[in-house]
Amino acid sequence: MPLGNGDKNARIDSGDQYIESLRGRNLRVFLFGELVEEPVDHPMIRPSINAVAETYDLALREPETATVESSLTGKRVNRFLHVAQSAQDLVAQNMMQRKLGQNTGTCFQRCVGMDAFNSLYSVTYEIDEKHDTPYHARLKAFLEEMQEHNYVVGGAMTDVKGDRSKAPHEQDDPDLFVHVTKRNQDGVWLKGAKAHQTGCINSHWIIAMPTMRLGPADENYAIVAAFPVDAPGITYIYGRQSCDTRSMEGGSIDVGNAKFSGQEAMVLLDEVFVPWSHVFMDGEHEFASMLVERFTCYHRRSYVCKTGVGDVLIGAAAQAAEDNGVDKASHIKDKLVQMTHLNETMYATGIASSHQARPTKSGVYLNDDMLANVCKHHVTKMPFEMGRIAQDLAGGLVSTAPSEKELRHPELGALLEKYLKGRADVPTESRIRILRLIENMTMGRNAVGYLTESLHGAGSPQAQRVQIGRQMSLDFKKGLARRLAGVDRSDEE
Amino acid sequence: MPLGNGDKNARIDSGDQYIESLRGRNLRVFLFGELVEEPVDHPMIRPSINAVAETYDLALREPETATVESSLTGKRVNRFLHVAQSAQDLVAQNMMQRKLGQNTGTCFQRCVGMDAFNSLYSVTYEIDEKHDTPYHARLKAFLEEMQEHNYVVGGAMTDVKGDRSKAPHEQDDPDLFVHVTKRNQDGVWLKGAKAHQTGCINSHWIIAMPTMRLGPADENYAIVAAFPVDAPGITYIYGRQSCDTRSMEGGSIDVGNAKFSGQEAMVLLDEVFVPWSHVFMDGEHEFASMLVERFTCYHRRSYVCKTGVGDVLIGAAAQAAEDNGVDKASHIKDKLVQMTHLNETMYATGIASSHQARPTKSGVYLNDDMLANVCKHHVTKMPFEMGRIAQDLAGGLVSTAPSEKELRHPELGALLEKYLKGRADVPTESRIRILRLIENMTMGRNAVGYLTESLHGAGSPQAQRVQIGRQMSLDFKKGLARRLAGVDRSDEE
Amino acid sequence: MPLGNGDKNARIDSGDQYIESLRGRNLRVFLFGELVEEPVDHPMIRPSINAVAETYDLALREPETATVESSLTGKRVNRFLHVAQSAQDLVAQNMMQRKLGQNTGTCFQRCVGMDAFNSLYSVTYEIDEKHDTPYHARLKAFLEEMQEHNYVVGGAMTDVKGDRSKAPHEQDDPDLFVHVTKRNQDGVWLKGAKAHQTGCINSHWIIAMPTMRLGPADENYAIVAAFPVDAPGITYIYGRQSCDTRSMEGGSIDVGNAKFSGQEAMVLLDEVFVPWSHVFMDGEHEFASMLVERFTCYHRRSYVCKTGVGDVLIGAAAQAAEDNGVDKASHIKDKLVQMTHLNETMYATGIASSHQARPTKSGVYLNDDMLANVCKHHVTKMPFEMGRIAQDLAGGLVSTAPSEKELRHPELGALLEKYLKGRADVPTESRIRILRLIENMTMGRNAVGYLTESLHGAGSPQAQRVQIGRQMSLDFKKGLARRLAGVDRSDEE
Amino acid sequence: MPLGNGDKNARIDSGDQYIESLRGRNLRVFLFGELVEEPVDHPMIRPSINAVAETYDLALREPETATVESSLTGKRVNRFLHVAQSAQDLVAQNMMQRKLGQNTGTCFQRCVGMDAFNSLYSVTYEIDEKHDTPYHARLKAFLEEMQEHNYVVGGAMTDVKGDRSKAPHEQDDPDLFVHVTKRNQDGVWLKGAKAHQTGCINSHWIIAMPTMRLGPADENYAIVAAFPVDAPGITYIYGRQSCDTRSMEGGSIDVGNAKFSGQEAMVLLDEVFVPWSHVFMDGEHEFASMLVERFTCYHRRSYVCKTGVGDVLIGAAAQAAEDNGVDKASHIKDKLVQMTHLNETMYATGIASSHQARPTKSGVYLNDDMLANVCKHHVTKMPFEMGRIAQDLAGGLVSTAPSEKELRHPELGALLEKYLKGRADVPTESRIRILRLIENMTMGRNAVGYLTESLHGAGSPQAQRVQIGRQMSLDFKKGLARRLAGVDRSDEE
Repeated sequence: MPLGNGDKNARIDSGDQYIESLRGRNLRVFLFGELVEEPVDHPMIRPSINAVAETYDLALREPETATVESSLTGKRVNRFLHVAQSAQDLVAQNMMQRKLGQNTGTCFQRCVGMDAFNSLYSVTYEIDEKHDTPYHARLKAFLEEMQEHNYVVGGAMTDVKGDRSKAPHEQDDPDLFVHVTKRNQDGVWLKGAKAHQTGCINSHWIIAMPTMRLGPADENYAIVAAFPVDAPGITYIYGRQSCDTRSMEGGSIDVGNAKFSGQEAMVLLDEVFVPWSHVFMDGEHEFASMLVERFTCYHRRSYVCKTGVGDVLIGAAAQAAEDNGVDKASHIKDKLVQMTHLNETMYATGIASSHQARPTKSGVYLNDDMLANVCKHHVTKMPFEMGRIAQDLAGGLVSTAPSEKELRHPELGALLEKYLKGRADVPTESRIRILRLIENMTMGRNAVGYLTESLHGAGSPQAQRVQIGRQMSLDFKKGLARRLAGVDRSDEE
Repeated sequence: MPLGNGDKNARIDSGDQYIESLRGRNLRVFLFGELVEEPVDHPMIRPSINAVAETYDLALREPETATVESSLTGKRVNRFLHVAQSAQDLVAQNMMQRKLGQNTGTCFQRCVGMDAFNSLYSVTYEIDEKHDTPYHARLKAFLEEMQEHNYVVGGAMTDVKGDRSKAPHEQDDPDLFVHVTKRNQDGVWLKGAKAHQTGCINSHWIIAMPTMRLGPADENYAIVAAFPVDAPGITYIYGRQSCDTRSMEGGSIDVGNAKFSGQEAMVLLDEVFVPWSHVFMDGEHEFASMLVERFTCYHRRSYVCKTGVGDVLIGAAAQAAEDNGVDKASHIKDKLVQMTHLNETMYATGIASSHQARPTKSGVYLNDDMLANVCKHHVTKMPFEMGRIAQDLAGGLVSTAPSEKELRHPELGALLEKYLKGRADVPTESRIRILRLIENMTMGRNAVGYLTESLHGAGSPQAQRVQIGRQMSLDFKKGLARRLAGVDRSDEE
Repeated sequence: MPLGNGDKNARIDSGDQYIESLRGRNLRVFLFGELVEEPVDHPMIRPSINAVAETYDLALREPETATVESSLTGKRVNRFLHVAQSAQDLVAQNMMQRKLGQNTGTCFQRCVGMDAFNSLYSVTYEIDEKHDTPYHARLKAFLEEMQEHNYVVGGAMTDVKGDRSKAPHEQDDPDLFVHVTKRNQDGVWLKGAKAHQTGCINSHWIIAMPTMRLGPADENYAIVAAFPVDAPGITYIYGRQSCDTRSMEGGSIDVGNAKFSGQEAMVLLDEVFVPWSHVFMDGEHEFASMLVERFTCYHRRSYVCKTGVGDVLIGAAAQAAEDNGVDKASHIKDKLVQMTHLNETMYATGIASSHQARPTKSGVYLNDDMLANVCKHHVTKMPFEMGRIAQDLAGGLVSTAPSEKELRHPELGALLEKYLKGRADVPTESRIRILRLIENMTMGRNAVGYLTESLHGAGSPQAQRVQIGRQMSLDFKKGLARRLAGVDRSDEE
Repeated sequence: MPLGNGDKNARIDSGDQYIESLRGRNLRVFLFGELVEEPVDHPMIRPSINAVAETYDLALREPETATVESSLTGKRVNRFLHVAQSAQDLVAQNMMQRKLGQNTGTCFQRCVGMDAFNSLYSVTYEIDEKHDTPYHARLKAFLEEMQEHNYVVGGAMTDVKGDRSKAPHEQDDPDLFVHVTKRNQDGVWLKGAKAHQTGCINSHWIIAMPTMRLGPADENYAIVAAFPVDAPGITYIYGRQSCDTRSMEGGSIDVGNAKFSGQEAMVLLDEVFVPWSHVFMDGEHEFASMLVERFTCYHRRSYVCKTGVGDVLIGAAAQAAEDNGVDKASHIKDKLVQMTHLNETMYATGIASSHQARPTKSGVYLNDDMLANVCKHHVTKMPFEMGRIAQDLAGGLVSTAPSEKELRHPELGALLEKYLKGRADVPTESRIRILRLIENMTMGRNAVGYLTESLHGAGSPQAQRVQIGRQMSLDFKKGLARRLAGVDRSDEE
């Protein structure tokens, strides 16, 4: 039963309904060494829930952006639960991602599930084709159910991995990668841990997938399975974020972005049962690398979301410069152009990948892998440079401003109003709020999503370089060069 | 009569026919202070003609790449003479450009005309709409004629400009921008000079266009007109390129790329007559900036051609490393990945611009301006970095190798074969040929097109920054930031 | 009376004595809206005091590094209180700064005072020379007193500035720059505020200086004066830092660097009296720019301290990679080389500036201004890139690890020990501690000093570009070019 | 007898005397497949000789810059023949190198010999100490002789190397590294080839040295020996440079830099005899790596010369902008600041290395190796970026201007004067000359020295990364990090 207090059969339409649907699930979530009574009401967790809620509200406000006709049922469904029927569908995902980045200034956590469905759709099709398995039909039934209720589905891929130089079965401890410990006629039991899963606690269901290429000896690790977030046997340990406790201080300034944040937590699986109906791979180890490559292909261009966040950062930097009265200086304008050039480069390379999609055998479209890697590789660098420029335009106060409590203090508040004045027509509090937003995005809570996650999510920089290296067609290009240089290979062979 | 020796009514299909069509035009072309008797036969000019010829031969070999159904006649025409009817048409231009860059390793000179037609198509439509002028119909008739014969049409935009801080009419010398000196019932007379026009001598027709925003006092400079390359009154002065005279030394090694090169020449117009049928703007100064902006919008994403040239350079660098026996070293592979990442970034940003095209009132599609500028701005830097890496992989010999005459010398040739050996199974001449190709692309003749033209063609770096700055929607983005930061603007107003 | 509980006449030798000397001063310091009873005992403030204490302890442990023979008295004094008698003295400051950065991993706050003495030494000499004033002798007497007691002297330069487009006297509020409100035979009274002063609360004395070039109408702003930190009329408002409250959570892991941090606070001066003996400029507005330029010349190469901090970050990144078992991978090694190349570039440009020092009229040596600006300009970028690489090597856990309380929890602690294991021989807690240190330096408390302060301290990036622009000797260089190009200027003039 | 026509016992003082000293040596130099009768009079070779001549003339004009008191004889000698007695001596070399770069705009070819003496001085000392050999005394005698006559001494290090994955003795052909073929009581005989040796033909003597670490089986390759440039058995093959033949066209504009150029040639040794008095290592293979490392340590900071060349390029770019009338634009000024920042970074890191020198056992000072590598690694990139910016400021005409013959043509010359006018008060020829100088430095003859040699001379980029990696003291830095992170290693061991 994935739902908490809400009516189990109801469809979730609004952000508010979504938030209600999360209540009363009795999840085993630990934070600061204690069990969290109700995550929905925890001030440090709630902003991450609000960010997911915006994926529902956007669908209500702008249905053309965030909903689409289901290829399974013909009904209008949330775009995050749609399997791409065309290149245009993939581009539309990118457009929605940028918009949500603009609206929340953070990670809205629903892309992993979307990209999991897209990649599993073709991979289950191809496993079935080879092994005559029933995975594809199961997946479609599961997806239809998710569409029906409009659930949030998290993807859980990154294992904790232990010694990075060893395969899963070679580790001292067999649990360092999620694996099947038991099977019977009803289903399978899972054990292991997934590290820092984005938005897992805010999801209704989780799909666990292998994190890397597997060999025959890793057969029990070749498992793809879906289970409700409140399934028995799961423990969540909430990850700390920079400046996370500011959300618990009670104010709205020092947090920078009071409404929205991201979320990562460890997911510990202790003999979690999954019925066969929700198993989409079990033992077909040779398809693990195909799944990982297709998932990362989709997911690396999904980082277009960061350009929406980048729009917020550009706006904040421009606002800070204006508040300081320096927005007309040529070097300030040039730095905003530079931020924009970086931001639009990530956007262009991402959507180019989507535009250049090709159909797979299953019918689902797969975006261009080279360009997806080109995009994500820029995402591992450019937000950092944009963050640096934003701090440049903000001025040093971005990291040293007094606390909200001083601003609210009767005597000190007046002194700060006087002394931290920028342009005469801008209230000091407005100026400080913008600086706190920049702090939030470059050092604080949202820097986790905007910087560190940009670096490591969907594969660290070297993973993209490896993938680019695989596809760079050197033999073809060497042939071009030899022909123009007049090199006759018949000499050489 | 635009054609030389050829049958004036014949259609040009092959590269050979094209080359023949250029003969006997008695152009007034100067090179090294002397009139060139027949450019087609001049060893320093011929490689640039070969590059254009490849645009014909590709259309024969791969019609789906380089031909398209004319929107005017329904007949199959060369893609360079087609006005874009869809985003996909614009993407197809990019694909063709990359292919031709791969095949020639240089500038094939036919894009300016293509982008001139694309931009004039909508601008003439909008001028007519406002002024009830007949330009759009004239342009369509002219384009149909060009398609019929499959002519090469050059675009002439860059004026010599004189003092850059003054408008055309403010210059001491009125001729520093091309302008109308006389009009009568038959047509107009033009005077002035266009600087370093790409492929002008290899064209059949030239379309002259204004180079910048114009005001009312510049009315006579607001002229768009087409004329044959051999029209009376034109003098061409051939531009020198780095290492240009190596083409006249007789060998095939030291030139690096023996078959192909680019071309720039100054075009001096001394009272050149143009009948009204070939005038597409005359005095509507307020449309000059629209024309320049639309032309550069198309043309800046046309620099995707350089990624085809880049493919050759990547191939040459990989081949050089292989010839030296160091291709397995991790830092070598990483540098090839880096070159690829740069090259595909230019490609992705360019095609993203084409994919995101929108129709204009006239029906022709216009690609995304922000992304076109993002693309071109990368093109002003990345080929230089790729060139540096290619020289790194090549080794110092790329700039210091002995001449072809030493390699052919009986005694020295044997010594060089012995001493300049890399991997034992690679003939020394093959190794040297690849190094000479890299020299050609990074310092020699093709560096003009691959580096300098990438920097300045379709606008120098600052032109793109200005255009990005105009479109960066700071007010929208500041609004995003204020909303997330909790800034209430009602305080401020 | 600058000292608190300690014996007013005692010399401070050790870090412990220094800490004691700060007690009982009854400073008016606000933090989170409340008066801080005793800063020395405040868990969020104490680490910043520890960092200053290390400047004393280093002098005891390594006297050759951190002490020097006073040019005033011939006695051995702390190097931070010494006026440079040679280029070697300036280099020795840099060596000490790097060492302290290595030992503390943060800002040790004592450089501003050092560079204030260095610059005031020559400026007071030159004011006296012109105006026959007594400033230089006063400064020497004051410095001798500081050396005698081994006090910490803070420099207060950055005014809050208000509308950046207006001079001090043009502001609506005259207090937006510190200025003299009254003078009598005893001394002067000061009013205004200095923004985010490094280590001000941890100092014994503060020297206030103008922050920019001043004109005749700004005469009352042309004031240089020293006063004790506990002088009547001063209010300090403590600046928030990213993750600052982790210091108050009680553990030693999540803080990243439990012992050391930096400090910035606003200094509000409300009619603070300074006797003439401690006034070193009063009204000589034409020397304000000389003072600012000399101070920033010294202080910009003082940012060599960040290379010591960078050494810690390189070490942490290398340790994290080792803990993950990936330290042998070629791309990991290459990234450590890259970090080192960046770090040593800052170091080399900084010490080159010191080595190239020249004596001023007063005898004190002034380092090379061009190279100081070259150094600082790199410092505004390179630590950000090093931070990005460190996060790359650390892995995503750097921003998402569970809290210390989970590690200490009986059940969860065991689970985390199991699941967050990297290499089998490294305790999980050790691994997490290193990741927390990297978080501290790239997003947390020390990122304020390592990143934001590197960007804005001693002048923001544009300030260095302006200064480099002033000194780039274009006329000389244009002459070199013309001579080699064979341009005869007699033609032109 | 190293000298040609000149008096064998005369000392060479002036550039003219130097040029005379090269005449009549009957060198076997091949260029374009033919023996060069007299290199001194060959128009393509002469500019490289002029560049060396300037090292003599500078010593006459500015003795404090380019001469120094010999540590061997106490007499005043050219600084290029001096062994560094102090850090200041090494810095003075850098100052002289920058000045000569400014004066010639190219490579003046005398640094390799200087750095060979510096490094051999300490290495011979340490060989003798271990093996009781007489090398050090021989070297001092040889150096004294060179100082006496003021000869140019070239260093020959880079072997042709064959298959880069094999040691010298493993190559199929034993001659791919220079080696001893025979020894008798008089001396040794050498065979092999040195690739593209800088200025070899313009030298009086050459010192051959091993190019890499050697093992016991490579004993015959462990040879250091000096011989006159006109020794029997040597063949030189002149290396081609970009645009080299422009020097033979007769004009002074298109060459860009009519007076000065660099030089590289292959040196083929066919049983060249060297008497024992000029042998400084023979078989002590274990010292080969010490020699290579010390030589590259000196030579990598010698690339400070490129900052002098960079000064010319900055000046040329500034002049070009001024000639176009755009020198007041903020983006132009910013680009000149950027070029300066890059140029001064190379300078600062180079001189920092020299300033931080330490004495070796022999007394000669050795500069800091880490910083020398940091410097050279920047030199492999920054001149390329400076070249790109210079082309940006120059405008596209830099690569497309008409030839000198058109400028001199009666009719065309007037047209070009009219149409290629920039600012009204600048003669068109002056404008073109500056553009040709920029072409020369970024694509033409001097780009070989300024770009390719900067990349590969004294070791390609990866060589510096390896050397930086060796010295980055990771264990020390990991210790710093562990201490601050509170990691107790006793847990782990």
